[in-house]
Amino acid sequence: MKKLINGPDEFLRDGLDGMALAHADLLVLDEQRRYLRRRQTTPGKVALISGGGTGHEPLHGGFVGYGMLDAACPGQVFTSPTPDQMLAAAEAVESGAGVLYIVKNYSGDVMNFAMAAELATGPVASVITNDDVAVEDSTWTQGRRGVAGTLVVEKVVGAAAEQGADLDSLRNLGERVNGCTRTMGVALTSCTVPAIGSPTFVLADDEIEMGVGIHGEPGRRRQAMAAADSLASELLGSVLEDLKPQRGSEVLLLVNGFGGTPLLELYGMVSAAHRVLDAAGIRVVRHLTGSYVTSLEMAGCSLSLTLLDETIAPLWDAPVHTPALRWGR
Amino acid sequence: MKKLINGPDEFLRDGLDGMALAHADLLVLDEQRRYLRRRQTTPGKVALISGGGTGHEPLHGGFVGYGMLDAACPGQVFTSPTPDQMLAAAEAVESGAGVLYIVKNYSGDVMNFAMAAELATGPVASVITNDDVAVEDSTWTQGRRGVAGTLVVEKVVGAAAEQGADLDSLRNLGERVNGCTRTMGVALTSCTVPAIGSPTFVLADDEIEMGVGIHGEPGRRRQAMAAADSLASELLGSVLEDLKPQRGSEVLLLVNGFGGTPLLELYGMVSAAHRVLDAAGIRVVRHLTGSYVTSLEMAGCSLSLTLLDETIAPLWDAPVHTPALRWGR
Repeated sequence: MKKLINGPDEFLRDGLDGMALAHADLLVLDEQRRYLRRRQTTPGKVALISGGGTGHEPLHGGFVGYGMLDAACPGQVFTSPTPDQMLAAAEAVESGAGVLYIVKNYSGDVMNFAMAAELATGPVASVITNDDVAVEDSTWTQGRRGVAGTLVVEKVVGAAAEQGADLDSLRNLGERVNGCTRTMGVALTSCTVPAIGSPTFVLADDEIEMGVGIHGEPGRRRQAMAAADSLASELLGSVLEDLKPQRGSEVLLLVNGFGGTPLLELYGMVSAAHRVLDAAGIRVVRHLTGSYVTSLEMAGCSLSLTLLDETIAPLWDAPVHTPALRWGR
Repeated sequence: MKKLINGPDEFLRDGLDGMALAHADLLVLDEQRRYLRRRQTTPGKVALISGGGTGHEPLHGGFVGYGMLDAACPGQVFTSPTPDQMLAAAEAVESGAGVLYIVKNYSGDVMNFAMAAELATGPVASVITNDDVAVEDSTWTQGRRGVAGTLVVEKVVGAAAEQGADLDSLRNLGERVNGCTRTMGVALTSCTVPAIGSPTFVLADDEIEMGVGIHGEPGRRRQAMAAADSLASELLGSVLEDLKPQRGSEVLLLVNGFGGTPLLELYGMVSAAHRVLDAAGIRVVRHLTGSYVTSLEMAGCSLSLTLLDETIAPLWDAPVHTPALRWGR
């Protein structure tokens, strides 16, 4: 295992400290490193909190800031944060309008966020994301996994929160955005969790994992490597089969790298995705392309579609100022 | 070789097409794919053009836009673009105030940009970047290599161009920024050029290339893997020895991933870099952290410092709106 770390035990500490140093204008790291929070909060706003295992950066800490999250709770690599982290984060950023937890659907995260919600003294609601169409139930999941589409939920709900929406509306909006978002991914290589020191899974030189999860969980099958057009066709075919958009629908296309894939390959997947979507009569009117919801250094990508409407599109376009997403201010 | 491509011959075409699709609000791709240019140009401004082999994305195409480049000429992977690409780009974006070429110091690029400058009908000047302190002369270079610091030159000179500086001033500024910027990098793995299909070099499981170039050229030596603090100490030690900043100097710290390194490791290198710089009495007052000047999927990073002064810091902070860097508008 070769990594730019001092050791498995220092990986999270050094990474979080560096994140706080690099974005000191935006982020504050709790002294006990239980959460990253916004430096400047918007008074009277519902507080949005997410979190989960680390190793997916910039998700979630890189999405803390104006127009998106108020705080993010980092667990150990691929391990849920604890309820006390979530409670401490809520205490730090809650300002009277309640707290919305945005939680990826993994059993550990769901359980710990539920415990934190039970222990809360003020109003709390939760949105569970489960955009991954690859498989029902998985290594750490009952039902579908929450993956790259989570960032779309965080962005859209974050914009609505900034505009003053109340807790109930935000939960409903979050569920609606999750409900019109679908994702599927493919891995070309594994990743290596520092504390384990060996690859999570092993693929042959010509083999890929179709439908992989963001922790390297199994997908639908192992198969031979295929051309970009063929991969885009299967990934988006599965997404479209499940999402069932009408011809002429307008979508956001998120081409998300898993951490080890060059940007130029991701742009190539944008081309490939357009060919598939053009043929299906789907209109891509917004793009996000880059490594946003990663799996350490895993090579591969996921493709996500979100159906846009007159509510969601303007909220996607609304100003955001976080370490990883910034526009409009 | 597993890559998200249709084939080596389609890699560049699909990647550039995808880049233009994903950033259609900002970029226009020439029909013959000779250059990417800004959709909206600023009339009367000196035109800034860069380019080079692809495989380093987002450099350079991702830096085309307001406050940075007017056009970028993409060559084949790790191969210089041709003079006719540069001439076509200049013709497309020149608006009467002349053209400044920003060129990384590789023999092919320098020669081709020089030929384009000779063939130009209007005023042209060039800035050659050579910020890499690792080695003098290298596989494709006489003198030092131009690497990640090039983006700092593009950003600072781009801001000054937007403010109306003339061609001579911009060339002088570019040379000054290059002159107060130093970089050194380390590779943990090789990359694979699609048209070749096998790794550019081979490292053992516990081996790294200290001082590597952004095409996988040899650095100072092969050595055993070391901890992040030790790597930061050698990289920045070499940078500081060459840059010779006074104690108390204010710098921009650029922690740049080579494409295959997770963001959390890069943030860990920010922590490590701060420990080295604190001890040296150097004050980091600006940060940029991410994979900006890459070598396909190579794992590793480079650390760059730019000395800031009352001219350079505000130009770094000035608004920029490109696919890969955006702030202030």
